[in-house]
Amino acid sequence: MSMKGKALYTFQSENKEEISIQENEELVIFDDNSVDGWLQGVNSKGQKGLFPASYVEVIRPRSNSNLTDGSISPVGSPRNDSPYLPSAQNAPFLIQQGYYDDDDDDWDDWDDSSTVVDEDGRSGANGHAHPSPHSDNPNVHYRAKPHMERQDSLSSSRKGSMVGRNLNRFSSFVRSGVEAFVLGDVPMNAKIAESYTIEMGPKGPQWKDSPTPFSCSIEDPTKQTKFKGIKTYISYRVTPSHTDRPVYRRYKHFDWLYNRLLHKFTVISVPHLPEKQATGRFEEDFIEKRKRRLILWMDHMTSHPVLSQYEGFEHFLMCADDKQWKLGKRRAEKDEMMGANFMLTFQIPNEHQDLQDVEERVDSFKSFAKKMDDSVMQLTHVASELVRKHLGGFRKEFQRLGNAFQNVSQAFALDPPHCTDALNTAISHTGRTYENIGEMFAEQPKYDLFHMLDKLSLYQGLLANFPDIIHLQKGAFAKVKESQRMSDEGKMDQDEADGVRKRCRTVGFALQAEMNHFHRRREVDFKEMMQAYLKQQIAFYQRVGQQLERTLHMYDNL
Amino acid sequence: MSMKGKALYTFQSENKEEISIQENEELVIFDDNSVDGWLQGVNSKGQKGLFPASYVEVIRPRSNSNLTDGSISPVGSPRNDSPYLPSAQNAPFLIQQGYYDDDDDDWDDWDDSSTVVDEDGRSGANGHAHPSPHSDNPNVHYRAKPHMERQDSLSSSRKGSMVGRNLNRFSSFVRSGVEAFVLGDVPMNAKIAESYTIEMGPKGPQWKDSPTPFSCSIEDPTKQTKFKGIKTYISYRVTPSHTDRPVYRRYKHFDWLYNRLLHKFTVISVPHLPEKQATGRFEEDFIEKRKRRLILWMDHMTSHPVLSQYEGFEHFLMCADDKQWKLGKRRAEKDEMMGANFMLTFQIPNEHQDLQDVEERVDSFKSFAKKMDDSVMQLTHVASELVRKHLGGFRKEFQRLGNAFQNVSQAFALDPPHCTDALNTAISHTGRTYENIGEMFAEQPKYDLFHMLDKLSLYQGLLANFPDIIHLQKGAFAKVKESQRMSDEGKMDQDEADGVRKRCRTVGFALQAEMNHFHRRREVDFKEMMQAYLKQQIAFYQRVGQQLERTLHMYDNL
Repeated sequence: MSMKGKALYTFQSENKEEISIQENEELVIFDDNSVDGWLQGVNSKGQKGLFPASYVEVIRPRSNSNLTDGSISPVGSPRNDSPYLPSAQNAPFLIQQGYYDDDDDDWDDWDDSSTVVDEDGRSGANGHAHPSPHSDNPNVHYRAKPHMERQDSLSSSRKGSMVGRNLNRFSSFVRSGVEAFVLGDVPMNAKIAESYTIEMGPKGPQWKDSPTPFSCSIEDPTKQTKFKGIKTYISYRVTPSHTDRPVYRRYKHFDWLYNRLLHKFTVISVPHLPEKQATGRFEEDFIEKRKRRLILWMDHMTSHPVLSQYEGFEHFLMCADDKQWKLGKRRAEKDEMMGANFMLTFQIPNEHQDLQDVEERVDSFKSFAKKMDDSVMQLTHVASELVRKHLGGFRKEFQRLGNAFQNVSQAFALDPPHCTDALNTAISHTGRTYENIGEMFAEQPKYDLFHMLDKLSLYQGLLANFPDIIHLQKGAFAKVKESQRMSDEGKMDQDEADGVRKRCRTVGFALQAEMNHFHRRREVDFKEMMQAYLKQQIAFYQRVGQQLERTLHMYDNL
Repeated sequence: MSMKGKALYTFQSENKEEISIQENEELVIFDDNSVDGWLQGVNSKGQKGLFPASYVEVIRPRSNSNLTDGSISPVGSPRNDSPYLPSAQNAPFLIQQGYYDDDDDDWDDWDDSSTVVDEDGRSGANGHAHPSPHSDNPNVHYRAKPHMERQDSLSSSRKGSMVGRNLNRFSSFVRSGVEAFVLGDVPMNAKIAESYTIEMGPKGPQWKDSPTPFSCSIEDPTKQTKFKGIKTYISYRVTPSHTDRPVYRRYKHFDWLYNRLLHKFTVISVPHLPEKQATGRFEEDFIEKRKRRLILWMDHMTSHPVLSQYEGFEHFLMCADDKQWKLGKRRAEKDEMMGANFMLTFQIPNEHQDLQDVEERVDSFKSFAKKMDDSVMQLTHVASELVRKHLGGFRKEFQRLGNAFQNVSQAFALDPPHCTDALNTAISHTGRTYENIGEMFAEQPKYDLFHMLDKLSLYQGLLANFPDIIHLQKGAFAKVKESQRMSDEGKMDQDEADGVRKRCRTVGFALQAEMNHFHRRREVDFKEMMQAYLKQQIAFYQRVGQQLERTLHMYDNL
């Protein structure tokens, strides 16, 4: 039964099945039972399509109303088990909390704001929540456009989940919980079952290797549909080497895992997920690209001695049962060893490290990371432009040349008594060869530049994390100095100041271990990247040469 | 002694030593003794430089005047032996006649209008001069800009030398003299010493091979100066194979020869000279390009059974003595066996050819030539654009990639405890390799595309001649039909009509022989062109591949 509705907020359509709606716009709604958080209807421009249920009020005929205020009701999601039938007033809050779409099987790929929520309302990992307005204009909600390369699922999702908090985890030493940890505000929890060891290696502190290293393949992206084809998504076959049993995961599952990682692993540079893409999600090239980048992401996850041992990751890699999946998911979301608490899980070496030396090491790394970030960015630009040239200019030039040769050959065929078939055939073949070479140029990025860009994108993400991680360590240093000064001035017990120093050492060790890990991976990855690129380039120029040689032979014995 | 002057005509400077002057502009002239037809002075804008003496009047102080009208005198050329001291009124005529620069050693490369003149005022080869105004505005003379690819020295020079005639040799069947020949108006000359034989070959009429075939090298373009360095020119060493004695020739000598060829060789497609270039004549690239194209031009000349036997050509190739040179030059310019008369020199086969068949053959060739012209033009455009891409886009892309790699390597060196010198060196080397590859792309056109463009340019010239040559033959056919009709109507003796038909056969045989020659050369030239291009391309891609392979090995054992 269709009914009237009104848009509570402006919504910008991002896929062709969706329609845009403006705040206060009148709508016709076909059925007020939302599917997957979406309603179908017609906007005032007459466009028909989907829009988020929570962005609209349904205006019910008075006689059917079961609400006391009579006429207006926001749309609930009758299919989920949420006990809430939210009122119009707190609907936006609930949207941000993700309640409208709590069933993970109903999540949708696109949804930035529903992927991670803390159901218990904890503001992050440390309980240092500061109430503050969460948005300049709470009445207009544009869905955040995904950041192209440096998206940070946490910051965008937290905007939603932390009501009233600017809780960008990395934006502040205080809010990350590291301050709390350094200051000793985080009590040792008796339940700590996790433990990550930092050991001294030849180049300083390093993560102790995982006792059970493994790898994990991602294969066979397959298009699936649900809700009678209204929504489609891609499922990947994920097979960890140590179980060899595949599980099937969607991007939203990766995104859920990624956001758990961001919450938990303070001072670790969590590899960014491949970019989200609102439109054209199902184009082959995009699927292929996302798959390649998920593989790299997974390689980085499995290679990391800490991340690879995370229980939530294990759950992601192994759980094949729906019910178990939900249980494990909730367990991971209730993990208390996050943020500041996570710092409690480190076993650090006994070696003394002069804090000043550590600071210098970190500064040196910081300069390096900045310059590497710049150079990775530059190489990304150049390689992207080169891809464009391969697909456009290079192809075009060679195809034009090929076409021109063919035209010459056609002209030569026009004066029969004087036309030499063998020569014409050879020239025409030369034309086709160059058309072919044009295609080879256009195809080549698939074999080399795409892979380079994938790896560079991963490193852009890893490098983008470091300024914030380094910032945490800087904050810890400052606390050490401050507490020592206070102790010197008799305003603090020396024991307490020593405690701060000790915990700061932990932060320093962890950061150095992470720097060390980054360097080790960087060397492996860039060596591999350069070799792979050069090999493919050599093969390419050889193929072109071979094509031309075969063509040249056609002129022999003319 | 400097004096005042006034510009008679507008002159546009085309070299940096020259200045532009506007009609009626007041000038300061440093010395009224012109050097090589040029004066030095200052124009009203204060620009100092050279301008043509004949374009200005010198305003002499009355006391110094030796002319009856007292105040104004055009500038003579005191260094040459011309008996004329032209008055202002007929100076333009004299300029066009080239009198102001008759001494060939004083000719200048740039000069379109002085290269060929008929001193005796004969209007071309056939005496069919029609008096008519030679210019729409006789008071403004822009020096003709050289045509870029399809220049026709004759038409531009004849505009000057044939006062009142639109005597584009190819523009009209009548004016070419072929009509006169076909109609029998050209008396057999007792003095005919030349004879060119057309024989029947496997593909129809063909020129009989020269009994004394030879080739000729053009080498070592050398910059020469004269007049205290005011003017510079390039001299080429020209060495015919049958004498093996070098002569030294300038472009203007080639141009003189070329114009003799155009006058004389009706129905033969005389290869165009490489383009003139007003500015930047002495830049290395231009000199190199002109040399390459003069070599191709020369190859075509020596390969042609008729052109290669021309007495004027022999003189050009062999004469090393100044005095002899002038004598031979005048003799060639007085050659009577030109245009229509040249048709008298053919020995044709006895085989009967049905005129209709000939006409069909010619039509077929015409379609072919049109299509070949189009395709050669297209290939020229594509190849030129490809050159531009090689020098610009391709180079830039690869150099940017190289630069980006080097930046990555520099970043990697910044965190000393973790920097792996071998990897950094390898990446940096990869960067240099790609910078190198960029340069290789930029250099490559010298090895392949330039040669292709040279040959295409030659063929553009040869093909551009054919429409006019075919037009002559069409005119001859029409005359045959006309005379046969007149004969049928009793208005003409059958003998006379038969004479027309016979002479038309001569035209047809000559044209077919020329078509045949064109095809034979085309096959040889295009096969060679394609092979040379492919060989250079293969070598290029191999070199790139090899560079990359060497670079790849630097990553071994890292």
